[in-house]
Amino acid sequence: MVKAVEWIAGTDSHVRLLDQTLLPAEESYLEIFDVDSLVAAIQSLAVRGAPALGAVGALGVVTAIDQAGRENWNEAVLAAAIDKVRQARPTAVNLAWGVDQVRPLLPQGRQAVLEAALQVLAEDEAANRKLSQLGADWIQERTGKDKIRVVTHCNTGALATSAWGTGYGIIHELHDRKRLGLVYADETRPLLQGARLTSWELTQDGIEHVVEADGAAASTILRGLVDVAIIGADRIAANGDTANKVGSVALALACARANIPFVVAAPSSTVDMDIVSGDEIVIEERSGDEVTSFGACRTTPMTARGFNPAFDVTPHDLVSAIVTELGVYEPASNPEGRGLKELGL
Amino acid sequence: MVKAVEWIAGTDSHVRLLDQTLLPAEESYLEIFDVDSLVAAIQSLAVRGAPALGAVGALGVVTAIDQAGRENWNEAVLAAAIDKVRQARPTAVNLAWGVDQVRPLLPQGRQAVLEAALQVLAEDEAANRKLSQLGADWIQERTGKDKIRVVTHCNTGALATSAWGTGYGIIHELHDRKRLGLVYADETRPLLQGARLTSWELTQDGIEHVVEADGAAASTILRGLVDVAIIGADRIAANGDTANKVGSVALALACARANIPFVVAAPSSTVDMDIVSGDEIVIEERSGDEVTSFGACRTTPMTARGFNPAFDVTPHDLVSAIVTELGVYEPASNPEGRGLKELGL
Repeated sequence: MVKAVEWIAGTDSHVRLLDQTLLPAEESYLEIFDVDSLVAAIQSLAVRGAPALGAVGALGVVTAIDQAGRENWNEAVLAAAIDKVRQARPTAVNLAWGVDQVRPLLPQGRQAVLEAALQVLAEDEAANRKLSQLGADWIQERTGKDKIRVVTHCNTGALATSAWGTGYGIIHELHDRKRLGLVYADETRPLLQGARLTSWELTQDGIEHVVEADGAAASTILRGLVDVAIIGADRIAANGDTANKVGSVALALACARANIPFVVAAPSSTVDMDIVSGDEIVIEERSGDEVTSFGACRTTPMTARGFNPAFDVTPHDLVSAIVTELGVYEPASNPEGRGLKELGL
Repeated sequence: MVKAVEWIAGTDSHVRLLDQTLLPAEESYLEIFDVDSLVAAIQSLAVRGAPALGAVGALGVVTAIDQAGRENWNEAVLAAAIDKVRQARPTAVNLAWGVDQVRPLLPQGRQAVLEAALQVLAEDEAANRKLSQLGADWIQERTGKDKIRVVTHCNTGALATSAWGTGYGIIHELHDRKRLGLVYADETRPLLQGARLTSWELTQDGIEHVVEADGAAASTILRGLVDVAIIGADRIAANGDTANKVGSVALALACARANIPFVVAAPSSTVDMDIVSGDEIVIEERSGDEVTSFGACRTTPMTARGFNPAFDVTPHDLVSAIVTELGVYEPASNPEGRGLKELGL
């Protein structure tokens, strides 16, 4: 299985990242030995995806410690370097979370930090595998179909996590159980994570699929071409409102109309119990240039402005299931429920 | 105002087409004197849009007559040339419709055919201007807003018609009345008619707008950023179900949830009273290559297949208004209504 983020042990131990900016044309790896290279890789989106960035944050502390040893940094320089990793992408909360998971162990030395960082990666993979099983169970039960046809959005696979994936992990699990039908992967404009990354993972895993324009997803659902929509989440509020890659809520609206389940898959760390509802989630707006151009090609008049919200919020009454490693919660079926508290969060 | 299709009178009379394949980078015109050039322009999508193709079909008969005169064709060669125009894009029913509007006048000579063809163009523009006034009236009344913010999809402007536009015509009319707020134009993958063409028209007309990814449209509506969605139609069934550019139904679902109007604008010729409901509309599927690549750039793995339905069907209960030059019909408010028969169709 492909690894987006990996710790290479040995005498020249370091972080290895799959350079996702070159996919699907080229499978090329970045060997990271210093903080500046790691920050550059994060900022260029060579590595992306909330759980993967958590792993990078944790391993980045080890990278900083190793560089400090080679270059005789004092504590202040080391602290500044770790902060640099932590703030490489300000809106990626998982990056800061990953750093914060291991930084308190600094006084105990490099080995303690490294072990804790590897633990972050191992726990992420374990959570993904567990939630994938729970999600596949739930979907099989709910749809009652022998071959389950799926629509998915953005990339939620091994490339977005330490390993295995979240929404994609459920698809992979259904495939392994020989219960998967055709997969419809939304291309996911503007950055095409679906066309470039999910289609690449599906191809690697030998899973039959088609890529569709994002605008096609709602009609694919309404025409009865799929049995379930499975996506990831960037942030989940206590009441079950979910923030997902922009375009997701159109799938949710269509699923509700077509009466098929809309399933959100995420490790429980994605749930923010301090946020009561989606109203409190600030929608990150990225550069409009991502919309008004495609690679080097300008698609609009030069003076046109792009509007580029990075994600949207799906109200909990449209979410059939939130699948975490702790269990499955069904917001749409529990209008009077206690929200994610049901899972012990 | 820009003209996508124009008859240039005089001693070297001919058809002038704006080459839409070069927009928005370049405003360049094709001067068409012969049938093969006209067919090539149609097939390359230099000219597109249902009403515009009707105009091209009608004028194409004159082009064939003029070429027949220069090259001493007999009647059989002329008939074959007209058929070639008629069948240049088999799925574009308006092209054949335009040819059929004027062909019966062949025995009456070139002048009769030319006058009938120019009549097709004039009536299309007149219908567009009339429906734009009716649509603007309806939207002002329904929204009650001073500045009406609009989301639109694909291109329904002067570039898609003989002149003025349908859905875009309403936007233009609101602008002229100084009642228009910000316009959100969906880029409209895979062929980017929104980014390339609608944004170009909005720029030409000095209308403030932003271009957004198609996946953003539903959340733009749910977040309350717009007051109305205005789109065109490829075909309208007797009960009010509408076939529109793929991606439209997601806007309709979001409008229903947000309780804002979803408005479909089209000349009455777009209504097919022989089709009882949208169930009878066959969804045209175009080449998957349009999805798996962007211009010359492949976006997916080489082996990945694209799924590329060209349009989707919006059920009539989600359509707030169908605006034609004959009047406005409100399918969503008339569950027991007689459908488009209400307009005398």
